[in-house]
Amino acid sequence: MTIGHDIYQFVKELYPICRSLTGEGVRETLKRIQHHIPTLKIHNIPSGTRVFDWTVPDEWNIKEAYILDKTSGGKIVDFKENNLHIVSYSIPIEQEMTFEELDAHLYSLPDKPNAIPYITSYYKKWWGFCITAEQHNELKKDPKKKYSVRINSTLRPGHLNYGELIISGETKNEILLSTYICHPSMANNELSGPCVTTALAQWIQNELKNRHFTYRILFLVETIGSIAYLSQHRNELKKQVSAGFVITCVGDNNAYSYVASRYGNTLADKVAKHILNHHYPHYKSYSFLERGSDERQYCSPGIDLPVCSICRSKYKEYPEYHTSLDNLSFVSPEGLQGGFDVYQKIIILLEHNKYYECTTYCEPQLSRRELYPTLSAIKPNRKQVWDIMNVIAYADGQNDLIDIAEKIQVDAITLLPIVDQLIYHGILRERKSLKIKQAAE
Amino acid sequence: MTIGHDIYQFVKELYPICRSLTGEGVRETLKRIQHHIPTLKIHNIPSGTRVFDWTVPDEWNIKEAYILDKTSGGKIVDFKENNLHIVSYSIPIEQEMTFEELDAHLYSLPDKPNAIPYITSYYKKWWGFCITAEQHNELKKDPKKKYSVRINSTLRPGHLNYGELIISGETKNEILLSTYICHPSMANNELSGPCVTTALAQWIQNELKNRHFTYRILFLVETIGSIAYLSQHRNELKKQVSAGFVITCVGDNNAYSYVASRYGNTLADKVAKHILNHHYPHYKSYSFLERGSDERQYCSPGIDLPVCSICRSKYKEYPEYHTSLDNLSFVSPEGLQGGFDVYQKIIILLEHNKYYECTTYCEPQLSRRELYPTLSAIKPNRKQVWDIMNVIAYADGQNDLIDIAEKIQVDAITLLPIVDQLIYHGILRERKSLKIKQAAE
Amino acid sequence: MTIGHDIYQFVKELYPICRSLTGEGVRETLKRIQHHIPTLKIHNIPSGTRVFDWTVPDEWNIKEAYILDKTSGGKIVDFKENNLHIVSYSIPIEQEMTFEELDAHLYSLPDKPNAIPYITSYYKKWWGFCITAEQHNELKKDPKKKYSVRINSTLRPGHLNYGELIISGETKNEILLSTYICHPSMANNELSGPCVTTALAQWIQNELKNRHFTYRILFLVETIGSIAYLSQHRNELKKQVSAGFVITCVGDNNAYSYVASRYGNTLADKVAKHILNHHYPHYKSYSFLERGSDERQYCSPGIDLPVCSICRSKYKEYPEYHTSLDNLSFVSPEGLQGGFDVYQKIIILLEHNKYYECTTYCEPQLSRRELYPTLSAIKPNRKQVWDIMNVIAYADGQNDLIDIAEKIQVDAITLLPIVDQLIYHGILRERKSLKIKQAAE
Repeated sequence: MTIGHDIYQFVKELYPICRSLTGEGVRETLKRIQHHIPTLKIHNIPSGTRVFDWTVPDEWNIKEAYILDKTSGGKIVDFKENNLHIVSYSIPIEQEMTFEELDAHLYSLPDKPNAIPYITSYYKKWWGFCITAEQHNELKKDPKKKYSVRINSTLRPGHLNYGELIISGETKNEILLSTYICHPSMANNELSGPCVTTALAQWIQNELKNRHFTYRILFLVETIGSIAYLSQHRNELKKQVSAGFVITCVGDNNAYSYVASRYGNTLADKVAKHILNHHYPHYKSYSFLERGSDERQYCSPGIDLPVCSICRSKYKEYPEYHTSLDNLSFVSPEGLQGGFDVYQKIIILLEHNKYYECTTYCEPQLSRRELYPTLSAIKPNRKQVWDIMNVIAYADGQNDLIDIAEKIQVDAITLLPIVDQLIYHGILRERKSLKIKQAAE
Repeated sequence: MTIGHDIYQFVKELYPICRSLTGEGVRETLKRIQHHIPTLKIHNIPSGTRVFDWTVPDEWNIKEAYILDKTSGGKIVDFKENNLHIVSYSIPIEQEMTFEELDAHLYSLPDKPNAIPYITSYYKKWWGFCITAEQHNELKKDPKKKYSVRINSTLRPGHLNYGELIISGETKNEILLSTYICHPSMANNELSGPCVTTALAQWIQNELKNRHFTYRILFLVETIGSIAYLSQHRNELKKQVSAGFVITCVGDNNAYSYVASRYGNTLADKVAKHILNHHYPHYKSYSFLERGSDERQYCSPGIDLPVCSICRSKYKEYPEYHTSLDNLSFVSPEGLQGGFDVYQKIIILLEHNKYYECTTYCEPQLSRRELYPTLSAIKPNRKQVWDIMNVIAYADGQNDLIDIAEKIQVDAITLLPIVDQLIYHGILRERKSLKIKQAAE
Repeated sequence: MTIGHDIYQFVKELYPICRSLTGEGVRETLKRIQHHIPTLKIHNIPSGTRVFDWTVPDEWNIKEAYILDKTSGGKIVDFKENNLHIVSYSIPIEQEMTFEELDAHLYSLPDKPNAIPYITSYYKKWWGFCITAEQHNELKKDPKKKYSVRINSTLRPGHLNYGELIISGETKNEILLSTYICHPSMANNELSGPCVTTALAQWIQNELKNRHFTYRILFLVETIGSIAYLSQHRNELKKQVSAGFVITCVGDNNAYSYVASRYGNTLADKVAKHILNHHYPHYKSYSFLERGSDERQYCSPGIDLPVCSICRSKYKEYPEYHTSLDNLSFVSPEGLQGGFDVYQKIIILLEHNKYYECTTYCEPQLSRRELYPTLSAIKPNRKQVWDIMNVIAYADGQNDLIDIAEKIQVDAITLLPIVDQLIYHGILRERKSLKIKQAAE
C-alpha cells in the first residue's frame, strides 16, 4: 500500500462530516486527525474573543434541514443526503411558504446543472438551501406550490477550535505547515489538505531524523482560524519561522500549481520553485494577486511570514471547485501521493539547505580522494565530476545549497550525496557563522 | 469651451511676437502670461553676468529687416511678414550686394521647399535671412542681380528675463514645471509649452485644493535661461524638488512621447511612465540620449534634479519642427487639451502618492464595513473588491501608491477613491515616518 | 612583418620541445621566453613543497621512449617522432610483451582515426603510449605479436618552475596576465598562449607609455603551477590585482570566445565583454561552468581574483583539441595577431578606464571651445558632437569610462580622444577621490 492509498482512505473517512467555521464537525475532524497523530493538541478560543480586527463568532451546529413538498409530503431537499444542501451558518427556521417565497433562499449554478454549490453566510444572519440547477428549474415551474421548510440549527456562544502540533528539531528555526478543516463534504478543496498534512506530520515525526528545523503544523479553519492563531502567536512566528506553506488542493491528478508569497522572494518561494522547476516542470505559477487561502493572513503587512503554497489543481481554477462535484472521484491515491511527494522533497531540501564553505584555497586535489580520474584519458561520469567541482567553486559561504544548485543549473536534491561526500573528505564544511552574509546585507 | 480652446487662443495671441534669448519679445510674452497669472514674478539678470560656464549675452532687439530687389524696388524678403525670415541675433547691416555675395547669408531647406527654417547665431556675431528653398532656387538663377539688405537690430547690454511662479503647498517639497519662451513664431515648439503651463498654473492655483506640494513654475529661455536660474537656485532646488517636468511640444494631436531623466529612475519618471502606460499606452519612449531641452541642464552632473519630459510630437521627431510649418495649423485645441490632461493626471497622482500602511494586522474584516459580500454566493464587482484587498496587502509602508498600483497591475488613479474609502473606515493611514524606508536605503 | 608573423615564428621555435608539469622542457621554454624578455625571472619550487591542498610532484624527464616490433626489429612508435606518443609522467620501463599485454597502456581516439591523443598521468604512477586509431586497429589484428617497450624516463625530486615578469606602473594596482607552458607539441592549446603573452609583454614594456597599472605576467604550468604561485602570493594578489586574464587558445582564425569569472561581474569581465561586443561581436560567451584553465584557481573561493579569459577557439570546443591535429597548421599568423589585438585593446582601455567628473555645473559652453557649431544651421559631425555631450552628461563621478560608453552605447575606444580633448579644455577631470563611490557601496 502506498502512502497515497492511506491518505485516500483518510479522506474517505472524513468526507461525510459536516464541517463549518465552528461546531461539532470541526471537533470531530480534529479528533480523527489526533487518532493518527496523538501528540496533536486541540485548542479552543471562546466566541466573542477579539482577534485583531475580527471577533470569534458564535458556534454553529446543525441537526436537521430539509424542504418538504406539502402536496406529496416527501422531502425534496435533505441535508442528510448531502451537507452541501445547507448554507453554512444558516439560522433555524420552521415555516410554510410558496416557492416564490422560498426562492430568495435557494442557490444553484445555471452553468453547472447537476452540481450543488457550496455557500456560506458566516457573518450575516441568513438561511438558505443549495440545490442543483436541474432541480431548481423543475421547482420554478410551479411558483405557487407550497413547501414546508425546517432548519434545526443552533448559533450560540461556544468555541473556535484548532489543532497544533510542534515537532521539535535541533534549532528553534521553524518550518510552518498550515492546512484547514472548515469545509463540508468536498475532497480536493479541502480534505486533501489536512489528510496530506497528517501523513507529512507522521513522516516528519517518525522518519525524518536529525531534524535541523522545528515543525509547527496547524489544522485551522480558514481566515478567522489563522487570524485568531496569529493574534496569539505573532511574535514567536515572526521570530522563528524560516519557511511556511499553506497545504490545500493537493489531491487531484491534473496539475501542479504554485502561489507566491507577497513579494515572491522568501526562502519558501525559493525552495518551492526549485523543486517544482526540477521535478514538476509543467507546474503553473500564480502571483500573490491570485492568492485565496491563509497566505492572505500569513503574508499580510506586519505579519510578513515567508509563506507560499503549492497545490495540484488550485482553488478557483477547476470547474468542480466549491461544488458537490469536488467529490471522492475528483481526488485519487495517485493525486494525493503527488501532493505528499512535493512537500516531502521540499522538506528534505530545506533540511539540507545550509551555507557551505571550502576548507582550502584553490581547488582541492580530488584525484587523491578518488573523486577525479588520475589519467586524463579516463572520462568517467563527467556530470558527477563537474557537479563536485562546481559545488566546490560556489561554496564560498555566500550561497546556500539552493543558490549553488541554481548557479550550476542542477537539481539541488542530486547534490545532497555530493555534499555528504565532500564533507566526509574534509573538503567542505558548514559555514561557521553568518558574518559574511550579514556584512553583505 | 474646453481648456484646450482657451489654450489655443493664447497660442494664437502669442504667436506673432518675435521672441529670442533676450529682448522685448521675451518681456512682452512674460507680461501676457502675467495677465493670466498675476502672481507671476518677472525677473531680470544683467548682460555679462557669469552663470556657471556661461556669460549672459547682450540683449538683442530688432525693428526691421528686409532684402530689396534693386531692379524692381520691391522687398523680396521681409521680417514683418514672418519673423523666421531673420537669423535670430543677427547684427545690423545696411548694404548693397549681388546675389552671390548675399548667398553666404541665406538659409533654406532643400528637402522642405516651402518651409522657412528657424536659425540662430546667439554666440557668434553674424547676420542672415531664412527663406523657402523655392524662393532660394528662384534667386539663384541670376547670380549677378543686385539687392539692398537692411537689418535694423541692436545688440547691447540689457537683461535676460524669466518668469517665476511659486504656489505654496503644505510642505516645502516641490514639483517643478519648466517651459521656455525664446522661439519666434512657431506653435508646437514652442508656444504649446508656455500656454499649457499657464493653464496648469491657473488650475493648480485655483482648483487644486490641499496641495501637499509647493509648485515652482518657470518660464525661461532655453539653455542660458535654465543655466542662469540654476546658478542662482541650485541649492534650494536640490533640497526641495521631488519631481520636475520640462513642458514642451504639447500641442499637436499625433503622439505622446516620454523623454527620460539621466538615469530614468526618478519619481518624475515613475509617475510619467505610470500615467502614460495606463492612459496613453501607445506613447513613444525616448532615453536621455535623445534629450534636447532644459532637462539637459536639470539632469546634468551635480545638478541631478529628478526631471523628465512628456511631449506630444517630440522636438526633432516631426518634419515641421523648427520651420515655418510648425504653425497654428500644426497644433489644435484637442492636441493642447491632451497636453494639459497628461500633466494634470501626473500632478493629481503625485499629490496622492503617499506611503500608506494598514492599521491592523492580518486582513481587516471588510464585510462588516460593507466592502465585501457577506454571502459567498454573491459576486458583486469582483475587480473592486480585489483592488481593495490588494491595496491593503501591499500597504506595508514600503510602497508608495504608484508602487502599489504597479504591483497590483492597475491604474493608480483608479485607486484614489479606494484609498479614501479605506482611510475613512480606519483601515489605512499614511505612514507616520520614513523610518522603515530610510533603514532600507 | 606583422606581430602575428613574429608570434607564429616563436610558436614554431617552441613547438618541438617536450613540456610537462616539470622538467627540462619547461625550463628550456622559459629560457627561450627570457631571450625575448630579459627581465623575466625564472623561479623554482622544490618537489614535496605543500601548496594549499596539493604537494609539488617529483620532476619528470624523459630521454627516449619507443615500441619495437620484435619480428621486424623496427620501431613502430617513437617518442622522437612526436612527443605526444608518450603519456606525460610515464614511469620508466624496459620489457617485452605481447600486444594483449601492451594494449592496457595504449591510447587512441576511435572517432579521430589519424590523431594522436594527448594523455597525462601526473599523480598516479603509470606508463603508456598514445597512437592513432588507425595504427591501433592495425596492431589489434595480431594480439599475440611480441613487442619490446622501452621508456627511459626519470621521476625524481627536483623543481617546479615558472616565469614571472613585473612591469611597474604609476600605481600598485595590477593587471595580471597568466598563461601556461606545460603542454608538449600542440599549437593552439597551448603555445599560442605563451607566445602571444610574450609579444604583449614586449609591447607593454617598450611601447605602452605612462602606464597607470603595474603588470604581473606569469608563465606557469597549469593547475599545480597557479596553485603553487597563489600559495606564495595570495595576499598581494588579492590586494593589488584590478583585472586579470588567462591567455590560452589564441592562435587559430575561427572564433572569439569569452569565459566568465566565477560571478561574471568583475572589471576583467566588464572590459572583456565591452571590447568583444564592439570589436568582435560574433564571439561566443561561456559561463564559469565551462571553465577549464587557471581561472579555476584564480576564481576559487577565498582567492576571488577578478580573472576571466578570452580565447579564439576555446579549449574543448574544437575537434583538434588535445590531439596531434592541434599543430602548426591549426594556428596562423593572422589568428595569433587577432589574439594579440584583442588583449592589446583590453589593456589600452583599462589604462584609460578612469572615473571622470565635470568641472562645471550644467552643460559647459562648447561653442566657444569650437566643440559645437555656433550657427544652429550647421550640422557638422553630429555623432562626434553628441558623443562629447553624452560623455559630459554621464561624467558624474559615478561611472568609469566603460560605464559611460555602455550608457551612451558606443565603443569606449572611440571616446579616448574625446576624453583627452575635454580634459585639455578643462571641462573634464579625473575624479579626485573615491568618496562618492564608496559612499554608494
